Amino acid sequence: MDTVTMENALVVGTGLIGASAALALNARGVTVHLRDADPAAVRIASSLGAGTVEAPQERVDLAVVAVPPALVPGVLVGLQADGVARHYTDVASVKAGPQQEALALACDTARYVGGHPMAGRERSGPLAARPDLFVGCNWVLTPTPDTDTDTLNSGLELVALCGAVPVVMEAVAHDRAVGLVSHAPHVVASLVAALLERADERAVRLAGSGVRDLTRIAAADPGLWVDILGANALVVADLLEELSEGMDDAVAGLRAMAATDEDKRDSGARTVENLLRRGQSGRIRIPAKRGMLPEQYETVTVVIGDQPGELARLFTDASRVGVNVEDVRLEHSAGQSTGLVHLSVARDLMDVLVAELRNREWRQS
Amino acid sequence: MDTVTMENALVVGTGLIGASAALALNARGVTVHLRDADPAAVRIASSLGAGTVEAPQERVDLAVVAVPPALVPGVLVGLQADGVARHYTDVASVKAGPQQEALALACDTARYVGGHPMAGRERSGPLAARPDLFVGCNWVLTPTPDTDTDTLNSGLELVALCGAVPVVMEAVAHDRAVGLVSHAPHVVASLVAALLERADERAVRLAGSGVRDLTRIAAADPGLWVDILGANALVVADLLEELSEGMDDAVAGLRAMAATDEDKRDSGARTVENLLRRGQSGRIRIPAKRGMLPEQYETVTVVIGDQPGELARLFTDASRVGVNVEDVRLEHSAGQSTGLVHLSVARDLMDVLVAELRNREWRQS
Repeated sequence: MDTVTMENALVVGTGLIGASAALALNARGVTVHLRDADPAAVRIASSLGAGTVEAPQERVDLAVVAVPPALVPGVLVGLQADGVARHYTDVASVKAGPQQEALALACDTARYVGGHPMAGRERSGPLAARPDLFVGCNWVLTPTPDTDTDTLNSGLELVALCGAVPVVMEAVAHDRAVGLVSHAPHVVASLVAALLERADERAVRLAGSGVRDLTRIAAADPGLWVDILGANALVVADLLEELSEGMDDAVAGLRAMAATDEDKRDSGARTVENLLRRGQSGRIRIPAKRGMLPEQYETVTVVIGDQPGELARLFTDASRVGVNVEDVRLEHSAGQSTGLVHLSVARDLMDVLVAELRNREWRQS
Repeated sequence: MDTVTMENALVVGTGLIGASAALALNARGVTVHLRDADPAAVRIASSLGAGTVEAPQERVDLAVVAVPPALVPGVLVGLQADGVARHYTDVASVKAGPQQEALALACDTARYVGGHPMAGRERSGPLAARPDLFVGCNWVLTPTPDTDTDTLNSGLELVALCGAVPVVMEAVAHDRAVGLVSHAPHVVASLVAALLERADERAVRLAGSGVRDLTRIAAADPGLWVDILGANALVVADLLEELSEGMDDAVAGLRAMAATDEDKRDSGARTVENLLRRGQSGRIRIPAKRGMLPEQYETVTVVIGDQPGELARLFTDASRVGVNVEDVRLEHSAGQSTGLVHLSVARDLMDVLVAELRNREWRQS
């Protein structure tokens, strides 16, 4: 890749994100120096091939601050005081607060561009690191008006070397956006899941894929999420208040639907239906997968048996006609003989897949 | 199956649920008579093999009332007045209200057992019907103290013939349970999705799998869901109010986390963490799939390429060692070269699968 100009980098903090970025940079020929307050973490990352534990002998091209969010401003300003790098970035999941704090500590904002790679795993620490952790993920950069173009470009180069998709946003807009698509939904999922904590066993047994999917993120580590939510607390609080108002309207609509007066019932039904329609409109806007518009995909549903090999046979038949299945959802039951596989395929390949599956005697529905 | 005693049945209402039940009964040798206010629907169902359009010449063993929920009490009582069957059941998704209403219309409650098969599809109508629609699904029955044992057994037989899992509950407990695991979550998903309706395009672009899974059910038909929610309105309203109180606590906790006073911040963090922990506990209770405990499964994550055939190759390798993949989640990005496949496998087969995939040079993480 002849646009690559980064020769060396310093990664400070070798947890999951820092070590993964270091692995990616190293794999692309960048000399990576590793630093971490925990000597064990830096040794593990180095032994995985993320870089060298030796301190850089000269000023590096880019310093990546991958320490816990609350420590970012102090570490960033300290590194700048030592003059270790020409450009600086970080990977904290909240941007506006830390950016202000760094400014208050006399951060050289011309040489710093905030960053947030939107990737993560259930596991943490350098042992969970992977060079392809960021492949295809959005990586937000939050330059300010006084950020040098060279510094922004250095950040963009990091994103490209990690295989991610750069998205430039203002810090405040970023924080509101992640509040909307990640932090507030996380609280909502936890609230719904918390209702199940003391529910009757038979009620919980009736739970299906809807509430299971809705509450999936509630399984995440509470300790980690308190920190994430705390760093974006006021944004999330505002969003939850907006949701709470919508909830009050829904409650009023539902109570009206149970009224004896017919006009009242009709008005309640209109309120509830309007809310459901707005939800449907909002839902349609969510990309089916990163970087793809949902309209480009169609779902094909196939009935399969529960024996080993059925999925293999299905995917073999699909790939025989050159169809790459983009997403798959399996729905079946323990001890039962059949299940459903929902395959998402590019719309223009839909017909050929349906025909092939029919030929191979798969039952579609 | 020598416990089968049902010889004939009348299915009234040949939409998705009625026609699917008729197909299942017919496939198991029961003579099924079909009836629907819409002559086209009944002809379609009959042509699909669901039963005969001829009226029964004698009293049938069971009448299945599969008309829209609001019509159930009237139709049920009318059928009983005509004496068409020895036993009666229905398939409406809400039980207490219709049961009371039927009682007010002088329903013979000894001969009636309420039912709710917990299955459905995105599509409706007889053309979407399948004999295996209910296989492995929970099918709730709501007998009252005066329901005849023979009538309950007739309902249990219907459930068994459809391949579903019977769950006996009181009508009120059922309505509260489906409010908890289905109706209230549906409203919540719609509220979160509605926030995205007018959100900035770049914000929506940052949406990942968390909010996508959370809002999946918000894509459902609003017209249909107004009816469902309306039939269980007060239960859902009560649950949403409970959620709203939790939301107020969360907002207060988050605002406290942004306070200057350290004690206040700590107390806010404790409130938020407590909520997240309760969510985690509730989430753990949801069965990973119907009829299976989540602990019996392990997840194996494999890195795959984006070419056609990769999934086929993976499932072929998995099935080679006799492993049946129980659930699969694909996570990858358009135009990128790698993706992640999360495979759920029975815990006791985990080691053999991991070893086989390693032998076949799959990259696991």
